Amino acid sequence: MAIQVDPEHIQMLYAAARNHDRTALAKLLSIVEGPQAGDVVSAIFPHTGQAHVVGFTGAPGSGKSTLVDASIGQLRKDDIEVAVLAVDPSSPFSGGAILGDRVRMQSHSLDEGVFIRSMASRGALGGLAVAAPNAVRVFDAVGKPVVLLETVGVGQVEIEVVQTADTVVVVVNPGWGDAIQAAKAGLLEIADVFALNKSDREGADQAAGDLEAMLDMTPRLEWRPPVVRTVASNGTGVDDLWQAIRGHKEFLAQDDRLVRRRRRHLEGEVRAIVAEQLGTVARQYCDGPEFQKLVNEIELHEIDPHRGAQRILELAGLSPNV
Amino acid sequence: MAIQVDPEHIQMLYAAARNHDRTALAKLLSIVEGPQAGDVVSAIFPHTGQAHVVGFTGAPGSGKSTLVDASIGQLRKDDIEVAVLAVDPSSPFSGGAILGDRVRMQSHSLDEGVFIRSMASRGALGGLAVAAPNAVRVFDAVGKPVVLLETVGVGQVEIEVVQTADTVVVVVNPGWGDAIQAAKAGLLEIADVFALNKSDREGADQAAGDLEAMLDMTPRLEWRPPVVRTVASNGTGVDDLWQAIRGHKEFLAQDDRLVRRRRRHLEGEVRAIVAEQLGTVARQYCDGPEFQKLVNEIELHEIDPHRGAQRILELAGLSPNV
Repeated sequence: MAIQVDPEHIQMLYAAARNHDRTALAKLLSIVEGPQAGDVVSAIFPHTGQAHVVGFTGAPGSGKSTLVDASIGQLRKDDIEVAVLAVDPSSPFSGGAILGDRVRMQSHSLDEGVFIRSMASRGALGGLAVAAPNAVRVFDAVGKPVVLLETVGVGQVEIEVVQTADTVVVVVNPGWGDAIQAAKAGLLEIADVFALNKSDREGADQAAGDLEAMLDMTPRLEWRPPVVRTVASNGTGVDDLWQAIRGHKEFLAQDDRLVRRRRRHLEGEVRAIVAEQLGTVARQYCDGPEFQKLVNEIELHEIDPHRGAQRILELAGLSPNV
Repeated sequence: MAIQVDPEHIQMLYAAARNHDRTALAKLLSIVEGPQAGDVVSAIFPHTGQAHVVGFTGAPGSGKSTLVDASIGQLRKDDIEVAVLAVDPSSPFSGGAILGDRVRMQSHSLDEGVFIRSMASRGALGGLAVAAPNAVRVFDAVGKPVVLLETVGVGQVEIEVVQTADTVVVVVNPGWGDAIQAAKAGLLEIADVFALNKSDREGADQAAGDLEAMLDMTPRLEWRPPVVRTVASNGTGVDDLWQAIRGHKEFLAQDDRLVRRRRRHLEGEVRAIVAEQLGTVARQYCDGPEFQKLVNEIELHEIDPHRGAQRILELAGLSPNV
């Protein structure tokens, strides 16, 4: 839920959040979802770029939340502070149900070294593709060394968001065709590490074999994603998973790879912000009695939807061909 | 893959396609994915609005394709012509795998009363949200009385596309939490009919109970989606499913409901076209040496991404606040 504050107040909030004030951090995260996102980003942007951002994605039910939960435990054993952003592009209707999942992670709620935050589409002005990188940036700027970015499902928006991480963990399960479904969802090409979770179940060897076979067929330049077997519910393999994640971090540190990867993300982010702002323009024009009159004409088949849209753009002086 | 033709040729193709020329129909469907979509829509739009469009959506692996396949058989028993549009917003990488699924439906390939077409994001200029309704419109305009619109997964784009159908069938499976996952994906609120597929498996009663319980909690005004048990692989329940689909069609026929539903879709479609056209503008400006120079500045933390995007919009004379 977006809140409004004086721009000068943002610097104070930032200073407090950097000084481990959790309420100030929560407030910054709320502001960054709203119309003042730009003010927050201006204030904190020079202080960003230090955190290792690790994305977790996979089909609903694959055990992402449990794995993130176990990852928090793993990092805390080494006394590493960790922030979690769980992004959820669900509809308003189902939003409540998903945020309920997060309750499980509250086992860490008394640990000052852990900060967990959920972000839903409806709360995020301009969409998750714009808002999620900014929330990650807030965690980064207040000094969290590791930020876990978890998606609820594997839709296009979620894949777009999770790709902004430095290291992407794709969670798959044993079971017929799960690896193939992951490939179908476009997860194979974004994975830096595979977590074969629930690997105590039947079919784990088959699933691992499927993944390796698909990786064999993939033209890869420099990094082949390791396949790590985990049982998140009892912690098995979570240390191996983090060894693989750190391996990828070390790989990125060489030859300017991290710099180049982040630059690609920056380009994508600027495009997303531009597109979002133009969407605002579009919504302004696709509203009101003039718009309804136009839809009436389309309904009567007097004009078709494409010509109708063209007319709106011309009225707005926004025709792409001008 | 989009092809280019003389605009006057489109009318000829349309006349031929209406006269059961399958090659002409395939050509129209190709054109409508490309930059000449507007020309096709202009030509055919007055002849649309007759088909009953039935959307099928559900998680990957739920058996949507098999159910669509069985539905074709069911409709053909009554000698009803049917067209299928399978939309697949997958990445270029995985596109091939999914289109392979469609091969299964080729069992109907010798039946002149069946026409099956796949549409992937990469082929569809302007995105599936714009292209899919136009492809459906082509089927409608050439006289197909029933169009089945199938999505591969349940991402935001797929939900947006399938919602343009007159009747939406949501396919779920028995198994712990499947109904809950469907709710999470936002499928509960878009369903007009539930197909509980693979209902010969353990947990069917539980899944049906979960769905009914969730429907009990949903504020519904006029129509409660029936839950129909199917086993698509052997055809069980497919006749019941179509009875439920026809029941929904009859419901829509009353009190102008279909007219109002389609009007909502039209409004959404015009907005999608406007947004897509503005996206073209955005892409024009987020490219080239000027854009790269700006990203350099962001990379050096001299300017933040939001101010950078703002500068692009100002240069383009497209600032939303102007």
